[in-house]
Amino acid sequence: MNLIIVQPDEVRDRGEIILTDHRAEHIRTVLKGREGQSLRVGQLNGSAGTGMIKSVTKEQVVMRAVFDGSIPPVPPVDLLLALPRPKVMKRLWAPLASLGVGRILLTNAQKVERCYFDSHILEPAFYNERLQEGLSQAMDTRMPHVSVHLKLKALLEDELDAVVDHAVRVVADPAGAQRFSAVAPEWTGKRVLLAVGPEGGWSDYELDLLKQHRFTPVTIGPRTLRTDTACVALLAMVHEALAG
Amino acid sequence: MNLIIVQPDEVRDRGEIILTDHRAEHIRTVLKGREGQSLRVGQLNGSAGTGMIKSVTKEQVVMRAVFDGSIPPVPPVDLLLALPRPKVMKRLWAPLASLGVGRILLTNAQKVERCYFDSHILEPAFYNERLQEGLSQAMDTRMPHVSVHLKLKALLEDELDAVVDHAVRVVADPAGAQRFSAVAPEWTGKRVLLAVGPEGGWSDYELDLLKQHRFTPVTIGPRTLRTDTACVALLAMVHEALAG
Repeated sequence: MNLIIVQPDEVRDRGEIILTDHRAEHIRTVLKGREGQSLRVGQLNGSAGTGMIKSVTKEQVVMRAVFDGSIPPVPPVDLLLALPRPKVMKRLWAPLASLGVGRILLTNAQKVERCYFDSHILEPAFYNERLQEGLSQAMDTRMPHVSVHLKLKALLEDELDAVVDHAVRVVADPAGAQRFSAVAPEWTGKRVLLAVGPEGGWSDYELDLLKQHRFTPVTIGPRTLRTDTACVALLAMVHEALAG
Repeated sequence: MNLIIVQPDEVRDRGEIILTDHRAEHIRTVLKGREGQSLRVGQLNGSAGTGMIKSVTKEQVVMRAVFDGSIPPVPPVDLLLALPRPKVMKRLWAPLASLGVGRILLTNAQKVERCYFDSHILEPAFYNERLQEGLSQAMDTRMPHVSVHLKLKALLEDELDAVVDHAVRVVADPAGAQRFSAVAPEWTGKRVLLAVGPEGGWSDYELDLLKQHRFTPVTIGPRTLRTDTACVALLAMVHEALAG
């Protein structure tokens, strides 16, 4: 944990924070926290700051925190992802949060098995913990917003425009006519929605539907990547393009 | 498996291939292979082609393959990686091969624990299987070359120049003065060696040593990423820069 993340209501009078769960355990055993030591602390969706350790016992860690008052901006990229196998999605939550993403829109698609949506990896209690782990790693406090959509068509036609006004919409497509690096330089300062398909790819119908809704197909080469590898690669590349 | 990879000596007279292991199982159960069906087949470090299924039984799958004769080039990027925790390295093998990397040079560093080098994840039998899985995913046949180096200083001073003549050497450094996207456009057509540090970062001494040996520090932003996330992000970005 590069940043200890706390809920706003865990911060008491004069910045006192009492931790008794896995965070206390982590401070005690991994960070070897001692009285007088300072740690980076952040309020979920709020500002970060410094926590001075007051005491460490087997039962709890007491800190006094001072927050700097500034709140990190929402990352300028959102992800529309055809739900991968639960095993793959499970390990993707933390990297997504650590790379930085505003919204994660998980959708059904022709090559997504319907039973994936019944998995426990889509329960907020499960993914919030993993997302927080990713934020903690990257020293961010902005929790990605997660939504699940059982119909791609309804999402594209009726819901997407109301979510965020994306200046740029791209869909990763190994057969895409345009190279990522050829179009990305135009995105600086804009908000990007990146769509990543299922392991077997989007169907022709789905790809047409995406194009009708302003998604430009872009390719990062002919190699077929596993969904988690593709998401990490593409999100990092979009961030770099937006920062460049 | 998007490509069934075979050893060259598994290809018999008239292109006959008999599989009895997990590949046969995969063809039977996942790909639902049947007589007359064609699959993509590739010889390890050799050319790819098409295999026509002759028979499928519980014991074996028999194919007749025709190879196109062309061998994929060695990927134009190599990775110098401070060995991460075995748990992280374990899941990194396949993505590295699927993204494409010529050589993987694993090194010790101040913040690498010495016991990591005793892990079974560094046994060729272990990692070759994972690398092959990654190649199969990406439909490549070029196996990355893996080497393990217990002394970074000796590697940089005595061994590295003899390995490959890299026109570009970069080291990922969150505090690097130059942005990745600012320098990468100059790399087109060149061979790149990318260095990625341990989870706790390179020491000042190590970073100086790398700089003395022509490594330019580049940053992809201030977020601290887990080693596997960073490797996937950076390798994909180097590939895109080289292709652009």
